[in-house]
Amino acid sequence: MAKTKIAVVGYGVIGQRLADGVALQKDMELVGVVDAAPTLAVRALCEKGMPYKLFCAIPDKISGLEAVGIPVSGTMDDILKEVDVVLDATPAGIGEKNKEKYKKFGVKAIFQGGEKNEVADVFFHGYANYEKGIGKNFLKLTSCNTTGLIRAVDCLDRIVGIEKVVITIIRRVADPGDTHRGLVDLLKIDPIPSHQAVDLMLIMPHVKATGILVHTPVTHGHIITIVATPKREINKEEVIEEFSKHPRIRVVRIADGFDSNTSLFRYARDLGRPRGDMYEIAVFEEAIGFSDKDIVFAINIPQEAVVIPETIDGIRACMNMQKDRLEAVALTNEYLGMK
Amino acid sequence: MAKTKIAVVGYGVIGQRLADGVALQKDMELVGVVDAAPTLAVRALCEKGMPYKLFCAIPDKISGLEAVGIPVSGTMDDILKEVDVVLDATPAGIGEKNKEKYKKFGVKAIFQGGEKNEVADVFFHGYANYEKGIGKNFLKLTSCNTTGLIRAVDCLDRIVGIEKVVITIIRRVADPGDTHRGLVDLLKIDPIPSHQAVDLMLIMPHVKATGILVHTPVTHGHIITIVATPKREINKEEVIEEFSKHPRIRVVRIADGFDSNTSLFRYARDLGRPRGDMYEIAVFEEAIGFSDKDIVFAINIPQEAVVIPETIDGIRACMNMQKDRLEAVALTNEYLGMK
Amino acid sequence: MAKTKIAVVGYGVIGQRLADGVALQKDMELVGVVDAAPTLAVRALCEKGMPYKLFCAIPDKISGLEAVGIPVSGTMDDILKEVDVVLDATPAGIGEKNKEKYKKFGVKAIFQGGEKNEVADVFFHGYANYEKGIGKNFLKLTSCNTTGLIRAVDCLDRIVGIEKVVITIIRRVADPGDTHRGLVDLLKIDPIPSHQAVDLMLIMPHVKATGILVHTPVTHGHIITIVATPKREINKEEVIEEFSKHPRIRVVRIADGFDSNTSLFRYARDLGRPRGDMYEIAVFEEAIGFSDKDIVFAINIPQEAVVIPETIDGIRACMNMQKDRLEAVALTNEYLGMK
Amino acid sequence: MAKTKIAVVGYGVIGQRLADGVALQKDMELVGVVDAAPTLAVRALCEKGMPYKLFCAIPDKISGLEAVGIPVSGTMDDILKEVDVVLDATPAGIGEKNKEKYKKFGVKAIFQGGEKNEVADVFFHGYANYEKGIGKNFLKLTSCNTTGLIRAVDCLDRIVGIEKVVITIIRRVADPGDTHRGLVDLLKIDPIPSHQAVDLMLIMPHVKATGILVHTPVTHGHIITIVATPKREINKEEVIEEFSKHPRIRVVRIADGFDSNTSLFRYARDLGRPRGDMYEIAVFEEAIGFSDKDIVFAINIPQEAVVIPETIDGIRACMNMQKDRLEAVALTNEYLGMK
Repeated sequence: MAKTKIAVVGYGVIGQRLADGVALQKDMELVGVVDAAPTLAVRALCEKGMPYKLFCAIPDKISGLEAVGIPVSGTMDDILKEVDVVLDATPAGIGEKNKEKYKKFGVKAIFQGGEKNEVADVFFHGYANYEKGIGKNFLKLTSCNTTGLIRAVDCLDRIVGIEKVVITIIRRVADPGDTHRGLVDLLKIDPIPSHQAVDLMLIMPHVKATGILVHTPVTHGHIITIVATPKREINKEEVIEEFSKHPRIRVVRIADGFDSNTSLFRYARDLGRPRGDMYEIAVFEEAIGFSDKDIVFAINIPQEAVVIPETIDGIRACMNMQKDRLEAVALTNEYLGMK
Repeated sequence: MAKTKIAVVGYGVIGQRLADGVALQKDMELVGVVDAAPTLAVRALCEKGMPYKLFCAIPDKISGLEAVGIPVSGTMDDILKEVDVVLDATPAGIGEKNKEKYKKFGVKAIFQGGEKNEVADVFFHGYANYEKGIGKNFLKLTSCNTTGLIRAVDCLDRIVGIEKVVITIIRRVADPGDTHRGLVDLLKIDPIPSHQAVDLMLIMPHVKATGILVHTPVTHGHIITIVATPKREINKEEVIEEFSKHPRIRVVRIADGFDSNTSLFRYARDLGRPRGDMYEIAVFEEAIGFSDKDIVFAINIPQEAVVIPETIDGIRACMNMQKDRLEAVALTNEYLGMK
Repeated sequence: MAKTKIAVVGYGVIGQRLADGVALQKDMELVGVVDAAPTLAVRALCEKGMPYKLFCAIPDKISGLEAVGIPVSGTMDDILKEVDVVLDATPAGIGEKNKEKYKKFGVKAIFQGGEKNEVADVFFHGYANYEKGIGKNFLKLTSCNTTGLIRAVDCLDRIVGIEKVVITIIRRVADPGDTHRGLVDLLKIDPIPSHQAVDLMLIMPHVKATGILVHTPVTHGHIITIVATPKREINKEEVIEEFSKHPRIRVVRIADGFDSNTSLFRYARDLGRPRGDMYEIAVFEEAIGFSDKDIVFAINIPQEAVVIPETIDGIRACMNMQKDRLEAVALTNEYLGMK
Repeated sequence: MAKTKIAVVGYGVIGQRLADGVALQKDMELVGVVDAAPTLAVRALCEKGMPYKLFCAIPDKISGLEAVGIPVSGTMDDILKEVDVVLDATPAGIGEKNKEKYKKFGVKAIFQGGEKNEVADVFFHGYANYEKGIGKNFLKLTSCNTTGLIRAVDCLDRIVGIEKVVITIIRRVADPGDTHRGLVDLLKIDPIPSHQAVDLMLIMPHVKATGILVHTPVTHGHIITIVATPKREINKEEVIEEFSKHPRIRVVRIADGFDSNTSLFRYARDLGRPRGDMYEIAVFEEAIGFSDKDIVFAINIPQEAVVIPETIDGIRACMNMQKDRLEAVALTNEYLGMK
């Protein structure tokens, strides 16, 4: 069977990881990546010997790339002629403009969470609403926080039914190395409800959700606390068991040293994961508790890598590669090396 | 009527503020403060011209203080002979040892939140259980987080009755200037339940409470999100009205610029408050919402100053200065300059 | 003698402190302050009971201020008719536009360090080149870092002659409460030479200067290390003596607890200084050393308040209030409460 | 020729990287690593399938490791019987105790920078004093900062002769994931001279050195500014050329995006380096300048990995594997994959 051909447009924090993730999928072919400037990410690609072909988003900028020794394989038009699906990981707002081009070339596209919902036919999450993405032309993925949050809530929902959730998002304010955003010695609060709670209700309309988001001066992952009201009671052992079975959730113990967002990053570095990335969200075992029957727990969201699996699920859905949700996510997981 | 005579033992972050707060109470007399080393706080007292007399906790250390030009008015025994109540703001564990001395000299004492509950006859909060402290010899105050948290929960509880609360404490990890503790680029999580939830139940035994605490690398105040289940429904306007009426709660608006813990600190500095301190907790108006009938909201706790009013309430209770809770707190508030 | 009449235009971090500083000068009158929006600073002014009159920079915005209860005493034109000198503390670039207005109303103006040098007749520092400002219409003050740096270098220069300096500026990246700028877990480096070294040479053209600036995620003061080559040798005791005699320099000891930028902020808070501000730069005694005859030392710059004294010196110069440099700075110091 | 057999004792931040670095050396054999507790590092080793054998430092703790599923290959005594050299990366002070054991088993040892100099026969740096380590039994490596600093100073010294240096160390205060140390919103200063300047003089006794160290709240690398006085003049192009030729120094450009310590970490992650580690120090091209003939420049020290190459050089020296300095470091570099 022919492999599905993919382009990644926008080779930044997310784009690089999407490219690496797609390159691991045995039923997909990464035709190349698209960017326009000699960013550090593009320079690293070059220093690695161009494992992926680079196409230039703006023809006028080809000479600028070549001038610093970066080989360019063609224009964005050139790669769009060759691919089935584009993973658009450009900065918020650019995806909407690119969409016209994708239409013109008849390629499907999956946008990241920064774009407006209207850009896509369906707002997508691999585990929670895979079926809605099947055969569609334009998907938009949930944002990093929402992707991780829905993994956990969907996991419980499929067992006991979740009526409502209240979340507190303790948000990392920048990625490692960002110089264009940041906070110093400050917790910044947003009005209620956070967009993540609203987005959760779009993906899981049978759940009521609200929550508060607080920005914090850290870079290695968000922590979300969740108060989830189940339809039937469930005990701590069952909660742990369900989370443990989920291939994209890792149950960790504070007593073992997993006591922070950054401990998970450090562990992933020590595991030898590329870039110290972790696709899985983590649930802190000793932070699972109850308020009457409500389940209270906390998750860690590794914001740089968490959306990679669900985006690849999106390829499977929109290209109708697998009709079955579990079959699709299982393949994504297998090729990404997740147990 | 004779003024109640007070000593503050331990002249650090809390001790300095207790001394200043007591000095403002027209029915109390600050006889002096006790410390043992030429800390920056003691040096600042000296540079200000010794507005308070300094007594030395360890007789052998008097010469060390005098050697650097700091006048000493006597030993700890000397001041204990003169006072009615000691406010003990020593590091955790020292208060327990000091208690023997307080007993010997027949003085009452109020310990801060770091001490074990067993050190005291009653675990105290000015608004929530004033009556329990009346006439007692040894009180222990709630910690900074718990003091602020109970203010808010007690305020709602007296109106609609609160059945249970689930809290997420986004904790500042150090005070400004601390060099002996801190975190960098890290959110550290503790097991559930946080001690603040447990302590709330000790003070308000009719409320069920649990919650998760996450330490963050900031210094200018904790933020707590609270999901409170009321016995009867209440709407947002009523919640705002009740909080607004509370003399130790300040309702602020994100739209006005009060969008962070540090904005409150900055505002207090610009108000001309000594040290940029604020006694009030803040409630962020736009972060008040509902999950069905549950009230969801967020408060800011200025950790350096928040316990001062309730500690002074403790003096009023243990000395039986006022029998009535509201009369007592009103006097404390008036003398502290709170509306 | 009639008092010199002053307006402060731009009531932000610097503007508030300029207003407070001018209000303390017995030979000056603060006629009012100018701003256009109900910022937290303006709201604090209002909550304090309007100790200074507020004039609105943009007539259309008066109603917006009044709508939230802030009394407005008139327009910017109204106050410009009444004053001799404007202290312009608006964001960078605005001062240049305001200058046309100042010319029209025939008032002198002192701009802050963010403006371009061309905006002014003279680039000014109270201690280093007071004489150049005498009688001029438009002065521009050195930036916070440069102001503090020049204080220290000028102090040594007047004793032993300084030939050249190499500086390393460890810069605080935001002020407490800033949400529009910041860095997380990152040291950002600028190309050599830093503008502060260049500016030092403009003020002290007989000194060669260069240096590197590194931005750091802190808010409570810059630290600068300085390697200064003197014309004749000087020993550590003499260096300490000279710095100690300077009214705007405070020699502190690490052993006493002054081991960080924030310890100075904490001390100023404990001293009861308004906002915890310190006008003085600090020199860390134990960090004074030598490399052959070169003097190596480190200073702390409290960025929020350090420029206040030199700006007030500027008023004295441009209004020809004192012809003598030392007489002028002594009066500024006395009224500001500096020893 | 038989491979040199190595044990790494202490499997923490440095120990893990030493193990990985030795495992890459074709003329060495990593027999195993030694630790005593199921730390995250040991757990990661286990999750990776035990690429290295684990020996337990404390026999009583074997059962504790096995209880959590971590295979143990023997005791510390067991591995000491099999190896030629131990790389001791235990916490400061432990190495001194271990030394008695190393003596008993007749193995050579290389200690890390935290140990006292007296623990070793020679204080060692691969590039600067390789010859002094030849055939010795006990070496102590320079600390991370000093190792990187000496690389740069030695590089210039061999070309033009360096008479003296003045350094400002802007130190990262913790490693990513550390919860036991940290600072918040604070620059902490140490007395002059920093130990790194003193240590440089021990390794390069013909150079005079002094400097100031300031701790900053970051984790991804130290930045040091250096003022180096050469015996003969050298221009910027030559400086860049010499640094560029050095296999353990990377000249980077701010204009290309290498504008911070963390940008280098991010780049190393994107390069696919294990853990995002970089062995090389970086020199920022646009921050190279001059003060008369003195060279002023800034380097970045990746504290987690920088000492690995020089420690491996130490094995070559003490085992007399190569007599020639350049031959030895070239082999280390080649096996580590440094150009």
